[in-house]
Amino acid sequence: MKERIADCLKAMKEKTPLVHAITNYVTVNDCANILLAVGASPAMCEAVDEVFEFSQIANALYLNIGTLNREQQMAMYLAVRGAAIKGIPIVIDPVGCAAIPSRISFIRKLSHFGSFSVIKGNMGEIKALAGVATKVRGVDSLDTGEDGQEVCRALAREFGCTVVATGPTDIISDGRRTYLVRNGTEMFGRITGSGCMVGALVAAFCAANDDPCLSSAAALLTMNLAGELAAEGLGGKNPGTFRTHLIDQVSLVDENLIKKRGNIICQ
Amino acid sequence: MKERIADCLKAMKEKTPLVHAITNYVTVNDCANILLAVGASPAMCEAVDEVFEFSQIANALYLNIGTLNREQQMAMYLAVRGAAIKGIPIVIDPVGCAAIPSRISFIRKLSHFGSFSVIKGNMGEIKALAGVATKVRGVDSLDTGEDGQEVCRALAREFGCTVVATGPTDIISDGRRTYLVRNGTEMFGRITGSGCMVGALVAAFCAANDDPCLSSAAALLTMNLAGELAAEGLGGKNPGTFRTHLIDQVSLVDENLIKKRGNIICQ
Amino acid sequence: MKERIADCLKAMKEKTPLVHAITNYVTVNDCANILLAVGASPAMCEAVDEVFEFSQIANALYLNIGTLNREQQMAMYLAVRGAAIKGIPIVIDPVGCAAIPSRISFIRKLSHFGSFSVIKGNMGEIKALAGVATKVRGVDSLDTGEDGQEVCRALAREFGCTVVATGPTDIISDGRRTYLVRNGTEMFGRITGSGCMVGALVAAFCAANDDPCLSSAAALLTMNLAGELAAEGLGGKNPGTFRTHLIDQVSLVDENLIKKRGNIICQ
Repeated sequence: MKERIADCLKAMKEKTPLVHAITNYVTVNDCANILLAVGASPAMCEAVDEVFEFSQIANALYLNIGTLNREQQMAMYLAVRGAAIKGIPIVIDPVGCAAIPSRISFIRKLSHFGSFSVIKGNMGEIKALAGVATKVRGVDSLDTGEDGQEVCRALAREFGCTVVATGPTDIISDGRRTYLVRNGTEMFGRITGSGCMVGALVAAFCAANDDPCLSSAAALLTMNLAGELAAEGLGGKNPGTFRTHLIDQVSLVDENLIKKRGNIICQ
Repeated sequence: MKERIADCLKAMKEKTPLVHAITNYVTVNDCANILLAVGASPAMCEAVDEVFEFSQIANALYLNIGTLNREQQMAMYLAVRGAAIKGIPIVIDPVGCAAIPSRISFIRKLSHFGSFSVIKGNMGEIKALAGVATKVRGVDSLDTGEDGQEVCRALAREFGCTVVATGPTDIISDGRRTYLVRNGTEMFGRITGSGCMVGALVAAFCAANDDPCLSSAAALLTMNLAGELAAEGLGGKNPGTFRTHLIDQVSLVDENLIKKRGNIICQ
Repeated sequence: MKERIADCLKAMKEKTPLVHAITNYVTVNDCANILLAVGASPAMCEAVDEVFEFSQIANALYLNIGTLNREQQMAMYLAVRGAAIKGIPIVIDPVGCAAIPSRISFIRKLSHFGSFSVIKGNMGEIKALAGVATKVRGVDSLDTGEDGQEVCRALAREFGCTVVATGPTDIISDGRRTYLVRNGTEMFGRITGSGCMVGALVAAFCAANDDPCLSSAAALLTMNLAGELAAEGLGGKNPGTFRTHLIDQVSLVDENLIKKRGNIICQ
């Protein structure tokens, strides 16, 4: 399995996919830089007049609703329709939907414009989207992840897509297969944008590989392994330095690292 | 006094307050990262349809008008009203109001939707808001701060809030008490966002402590001490490295550092 | 010639020009930080109600259409008219115009509100603007730059301004003089915002010097030399560290470095 995941990384680096992102203004720079670091090509294009056309030249669409406003909503409807027509993967990051219920309605409405390939959120967001009780604080999940696998599988079946729920153990499921990834670092919680960045990576990997579930696992492993190496020697401190090292390390993750150090199992 | 200021830091770290920020798009990422570094939880939510509701789950509201547009103005009216109803502290950062007079009218209008806990600006902005002649260049203050204490006291009394004017000496006054903080570094002027970041910290400290004046002093000391340590060894150069170190050092400021190295007096 | 280019840097540092920027939200923080690093004063002001007035107190206007929406378009029309009336240099960065043709129409329409001093893009964008076939991927140029000098000269003559086309060799032409700059590093392509940052620098240099063509050459040399030094020892890797070092190094570029290490010829 790790062999095939490592192949996903290789294919992504060879394709250098153009990832069309409509994302929040807090971490948009981090998303662009991590896409470049991993070998993809980012394009943040969100004008209502441009997104439909732009989706026709992109290799994947990444949508993040962290600072969703009305213009972005319209842009997302248009971009999703365009991506669906073009047949490129659509990855949705339902940031904050547990704290702001109107975002759940938006995600569900958006799904009628084109099928998602992957829904990626933290455990609180995934449970909220699935209609299961959860505990969050603002955009952060406080959910311990109990029943997480079941919720992911059910949501994956409902949407006919892959669901990724991040946490101490990341869960990735398409309703049949379920991967558990145990790499990572607590430092991800000390900087803004960890979740957004991994979402952007998922889009890049999906752009170059046919299997969204395996692609998501490859993206999660790439991010988590880079995070582990970036956190080395910091003793759980110095989030500014961690953030810089994280971008450095993402550019260095290769197939060997995934095979050697990847901690992933298939349920 | 430093004992009580150190207690503010402790209380803030224990509460990990959720800070609702509506801020400019230039330094929003820095604000989120410094809030995480200090131990608070940032949430940048500014959609007109969401802010009123979001203010009901937040512990403080931070407003920064650095890149104010019409939608943000509407969002701020709604958020201030929501925060006032909920009874959480409102911190306003009147960025650029000395160069762009229409922002003064906006701030004054906004104050009718809910009472501010703290107005925090550079000396030029505070004087402009108080209707006193000043000297600025764009968003930067060139004011030498003469009569600064008096202006802060008068503005604090007018708005019934705490006023913070940053500069070589930071002035913090609620109209009765006036604190002077002399820590800090000239490197703050070599990066963008120093003022925004300290404003976000003020909101975090106010969220966990009843006394906005003391909380503001604690936030200023935390930022300034972190800045001093971040600047060490840089010789007034290397602003990129300083910025990374600043986030690192903010995460390390503790009660002992404030007691030992804090340079604050009460007038 | 390098003597006069070094003088441009000196004049810019002495003037500390106020650069009014309306730019994309992906790299706006980088643009602000590099302007501060080089010794200029950035002001990102883009509200439709404020830009005309703000252009009257600025020393240069920098426009970047990377994430252009309708409100930004209106703001740019107003700001360009204001800058033209005030007589300050206008620098336009036509990001993405090769991938999104509607942006070409926008740039051409915008030019009727005031004369540009400099158009700065990558080779793909400059060729697209000139109506010449080119090859791009999203916002990145894949153009090898053949006939680049001719295209720059023709476009410069058409718009009556200086044209800068970045690439392995940067081309700077006002239709009569053409400079070729060969400094730089491939690391510029590994982070987001390299192009935006150099555009912001061009505006800063133009604000303090009468000759936009020479000013642009000075800005390009400053950026490229800083990039070379920032990339030293990184072995083409570690884009996160490179980005931090780049800001550091921009603050250190001085006249001597330009004279000693600048690789520029005049055609």
